Amino acid sequence: MKTPRATPGTGHLASWARQLERSPLQKLLAQTMQPDVLSLALGLPDLDLFPQAVYLEHLALVLQHDPRALQYGPASEQLKTAIVKLMRERGVRCSEEQIFLTNGAQQGLSLLVHLLLEPGGMVLLEDFVYPGFQQVLAPFQPAILSVPVDRQRGIDVDAVAAILQSGARPAFLYTMSEGHNPLGISLPFETRRQLITLAQRYELPIIEDDAYGLLSYDGPTPPALRGLDEDWVFYVGSFSKTFAPALRAGWLIVPRQFQLHLSVMKEASDIDTATLSQRALASYLGVEDFAAHLERLRTAYRSKRDTLLAALGQHLPSYARWEHPHSGFFVWVELPPALDTTRLFEQALAQNMAFLPSAPFSVTRQARSSLRLNFSHPTHESIWQAIRRLGALLESNEA
Amino acid sequence: MKTPRATPGTGHLASWARQLERSPLQKLLAQTMQPDVLSLALGLPDLDLFPQAVYLEHLALVLQHDPRALQYGPASEQLKTAIVKLMRERGVRCSEEQIFLTNGAQQGLSLLVHLLLEPGGMVLLEDFVYPGFQQVLAPFQPAILSVPVDRQRGIDVDAVAAILQSGARPAFLYTMSEGHNPLGISLPFETRRQLITLAQRYELPIIEDDAYGLLSYDGPTPPALRGLDEDWVFYVGSFSKTFAPALRAGWLIVPRQFQLHLSVMKEASDIDTATLSQRALASYLGVEDFAAHLERLRTAYRSKRDTLLAALGQHLPSYARWEHPHSGFFVWVELPPALDTTRLFEQALAQNMAFLPSAPFSVTRQARSSLRLNFSHPTHESIWQAIRRLGALLESNEA
Repeated sequence: MKTPRATPGTGHLASWARQLERSPLQKLLAQTMQPDVLSLALGLPDLDLFPQAVYLEHLALVLQHDPRALQYGPASEQLKTAIVKLMRERGVRCSEEQIFLTNGAQQGLSLLVHLLLEPGGMVLLEDFVYPGFQQVLAPFQPAILSVPVDRQRGIDVDAVAAILQSGARPAFLYTMSEGHNPLGISLPFETRRQLITLAQRYELPIIEDDAYGLLSYDGPTPPALRGLDEDWVFYVGSFSKTFAPALRAGWLIVPRQFQLHLSVMKEASDIDTATLSQRALASYLGVEDFAAHLERLRTAYRSKRDTLLAALGQHLPSYARWEHPHSGFFVWVELPPALDTTRLFEQALAQNMAFLPSAPFSVTRQARSSLRLNFSHPTHESIWQAIRRLGALLESNEA
Repeated sequence: MKTPRATPGTGHLASWARQLERSPLQKLLAQTMQPDVLSLALGLPDLDLFPQAVYLEHLALVLQHDPRALQYGPASEQLKTAIVKLMRERGVRCSEEQIFLTNGAQQGLSLLVHLLLEPGGMVLLEDFVYPGFQQVLAPFQPAILSVPVDRQRGIDVDAVAAILQSGARPAFLYTMSEGHNPLGISLPFETRRQLITLAQRYELPIIEDDAYGLLSYDGPTPPALRGLDEDWVFYVGSFSKTFAPALRAGWLIVPRQFQLHLSVMKEASDIDTATLSQRALASYLGVEDFAAHLERLRTAYRSKRDTLLAALGQHLPSYARWEHPHSGFFVWVELPPALDTTRLFEQALAQNMAFLPSAPFSVTRQARSSLRLNFSHPTHESIWQAIRRLGALLESNEA
């Protein structure tokens, strides 16, 4: 076979994809999914918590009663109404006209970046960023400004202020106010307020990724950033962690003047039509007690978080540092700078234990001495076993 | 409210979307969907033909027996296997490694364009092109070369040859070999062969949009272009017309070295994970008689096509010209150059009848005297009534 001239490298996204092919992340992830591996690597929800049977009932209701259930059609207004209601739990007031339904949160992030960023433009990130968002950014080859994150107080607001005062005008700041991935941080209310003040003063759009916002474990949380500002915060929500990933049901909350633009952009990328998943989810949310479902999730994940924290306390050497996450799926563990967690990852895998090293999260790829542990997916027993192995591994590295 | 600096116009896709906002197509489409309108405008499948009850059975099977049915997971290998089998009907031999599952054909088109085209690059189109593909192209602001299409013989291969001989090297040619949208043409075998010879000689990638390829009404069809060449043809398939649009189930067939690149690109745009729809469709295709289902569709659509052709023969003035389409959803009607079908569309709407004028399909927007009629969605009775109104309208325009 001749090699087509069309071989990757022709389109600009393709040449970027060729770079990613050489990145180790895909390979890492594949390795952690081997059946024997005790994996605390990925951010998967616990599948025992999916409301599979009840969801099937609503698929049946929709398919049996709506003759247009499988036809092309506009996004579900019923689902938007349910989301408006749900958003009150995040301290966000909005209307149906501001909700834009997406094929999961990832498409929401992608649409917002295409809306706000020019190729080669400038963006403002934290030092550690969800790799899926870095993937969205990569084809734009943006100039990246990054600011430190304190393990307790979160994003360094003074550093953000200094950058904006210096005259830099990034296209947006990307952040997570609740259940930060990978750091597990929930921003204190005061930090949120300061961030919003800066956004308003310097007219800085903020992309708020709130995939974990409804999964908080220690009582009420401060409002989402979107709850503090309607003009500058572009909110990204998702049912992937609170219902199930395979539905691909996410949403944006944006000023209503963006609806049409987003719709045209979505139409070009995959046609802006209601899916059966969205229709069934709308039916479910209209009838079932989603608040009770969320409480079940919180109870289960709180308990797993506590197991992970207990296991870390028992098995990790005293030089390891971590915080107590109030929401989300992750605990971030900092080790001494001499320890390279990418190397440690290989050693852990050899002993059938997996975490994610800090390098893929690090915007500079230079921060190599931390690691991310997931507690949502593994069983309690697996968490104990995995952390025991990790502890032993760290001990053997000292010796 | 202050106007955010982030107002559309910041990102390059956004500024393109702002142009589209002013395009009349969205408005046209909204008007044709009013309940009283006898619409032959859109390319919707007949929803009475959706296998809704059987599909529900397979959703139930998957949800009751696969505990990972709603979890993140790799694309369904079972669905790829079913597609490999199905492709034999289009004269295409391929393997699972060459199938890439997409969120409908539209995402397949979008991914291919991102793979093959640089912003500002050059593309080769026919004079009339599916507007959804023009939407995919628009943000790239490509230089467009276009070639005429003969109502019977299809794409003007000599014109393609002349362009390539002149030294132009477009990133790809986009075409539909079977059930052309909007022209209704099925390419003669000889034309397909000539096109492939040119693609191979000049190393020209071809994007073959085959959304209607399995819906042919007059006996066996020639193989798809992909059946004649494996190196240069990038094939786009879809279950939207043969099963149901709301599943968003499409696929690409590409040389296997592109799999990883497409996966990285899809991961960035909406996460490359199996959806419940794909899993249930795989279950359906593994057990049910899809060939018999396709025969039911062909019988129903053949009969509606014949109704439309009969109605045209009875009600349209003798100056109107159309062909007998062997596949797809559409009949293309040519009227005298003096007639502007965009104006005619407004008049038709006033009488509660709708078609689509030629302008949105015309690459130059200059071809304004033809119109597209859909026969898949309306009832036989609606087709008769609508064409009677169209005939009367044309008569009154003459008077």
